[in-house]
Amino acid sequence: MSPASQTPLYAKVEATLGAEISCGALSAGSQLPPEDSLIDRFDVSRTTVRKAVENLVARGLVEIRRGRGTFVTEPKIRQELTKLTGFVEDMVALGRNPTARVLDFRPVAATAAVALQLDIPVGTQVYRFERVRLADGVPMSFDETYLPLEIGEKIAGDDLAVEPIFSLLENKYELPLVEAQYQMEATTADAHVAKALQVAVGAPIFLIERTSYCEGPTPIDYERLYYRGDLIKFVTRLSRHSSR
Amino acid sequence: MSPASQTPLYAKVEATLGAEISCGALSAGSQLPPEDSLIDRFDVSRTTVRKAVENLVARGLVEIRRGRGTFVTEPKIRQELTKLTGFVEDMVALGRNPTARVLDFRPVAATAAVALQLDIPVGTQVYRFERVRLADGVPMSFDETYLPLEIGEKIAGDDLAVEPIFSLLENKYELPLVEAQYQMEATTADAHVAKALQVAVGAPIFLIERTSYCEGPTPIDYERLYYRGDLIKFVTRLSRHSSR
Repeated sequence: MSPASQTPLYAKVEATLGAEISCGALSAGSQLPPEDSLIDRFDVSRTTVRKAVENLVARGLVEIRRGRGTFVTEPKIRQELTKLTGFVEDMVALGRNPTARVLDFRPVAATAAVALQLDIPVGTQVYRFERVRLADGVPMSFDETYLPLEIGEKIAGDDLAVEPIFSLLENKYELPLVEAQYQMEATTADAHVAKALQVAVGAPIFLIERTSYCEGPTPIDYERLYYRGDLIKFVTRLSRHSSR
Repeated sequence: MSPASQTPLYAKVEATLGAEISCGALSAGSQLPPEDSLIDRFDVSRTTVRKAVENLVARGLVEIRRGRGTFVTEPKIRQELTKLTGFVEDMVALGRNPTARVLDFRPVAATAAVALQLDIPVGTQVYRFERVRLADGVPMSFDETYLPLEIGEKIAGDDLAVEPIFSLLENKYELPLVEAQYQMEATTADAHVAKALQVAVGAPIFLIERTSYCEGPTPIDYERLYYRGDLIKFVTRLSRHSSR
């Protein structure tokens, strides 16, 4: 009569292995026991074990390395989300080495979404940059950045493989950032994002739309940051009663 | 020579239709033009149109209603993420009617993840609740809630289809919440979550792990909130320089 009795067998196997991964009994980087050994241990069919492992793959807890077996993935990076910070600042704070690959930069006409965020008419020329941001050589985030044309043209002359846009805005162009609006959603990788991040189409993506402001009401920078969902989580603390 | 010339045709079709959806030229709930008309308009192959539409489906901008066609989806709910609030409070603030379905509740042994969050030894008995939270009758979130055994046993006697746990804790059991840690990630639905939310396995999920505290250092409530990624986005503002 209990709902638990309706839990399918593969879900029980999945939950047990998932718990062993989260407590470290199965440690990051280690190989999952072979299929036959899981069949014996849980006394279930091969189909059941495969379905459980497929779900662990889908959840990003294990990954299949072709010809070598199934391995426990590295735990996600825990990144604080309490201040307006850029990728380079975030990765340095986490002890990772940030690098960037510039995929594209050009003037484009502002779409409705870009126009809304930069508070300009639809169709206004803006500068668009596409970069892949890497941590210790691993692609972490695919960033689309939209800047007002004039400042974008200046930044297009800088070396974005070396210098982050936040540093250039603040230090070289004397546009200190004050705050930003963050819009966060879970989505999946389309073909363009998947290629840039070297993940499968449909892989989980933590999308941050960030609109940054200098002093005053005019936005200076609108970004769409496509983070690899399997690699990162964001952490903050919120109070029950607002202090504002 | 330009990188833009390498943009595949389907990506251009996808971008154009995506922009028309985001600016409202193709409005929420309306039907996408038929395949043949898109083929004519963009002067591309059927394969190209299909791939573009598939990607729009994957991004949640359109949905296929079997036997009826492809429709522009409703825009995502924009939920503020600036204070510790519960689902009922959030939905009321958004003008939606919140309801709940209780799927399961029972004492369980704390897994490593639960023990870490509730600051108790692994294996300690805790109370676990599974609920689906609905907004205007649509499943929005699948919630797993873990409470210390004693308080969980009390709440198991309440009607969670009617009363939210936050209200019970604060008003009935005099345990006012002070703050919470939020851990946010993008993931995909496993079989259990997919069934609860009536979405496909692999659908995008915005997962919030929330650990709530009363006055003092002891956590009172650990939740795993699986939000439908296609229905919601979370919005906050962050300052460049911390006020702490």
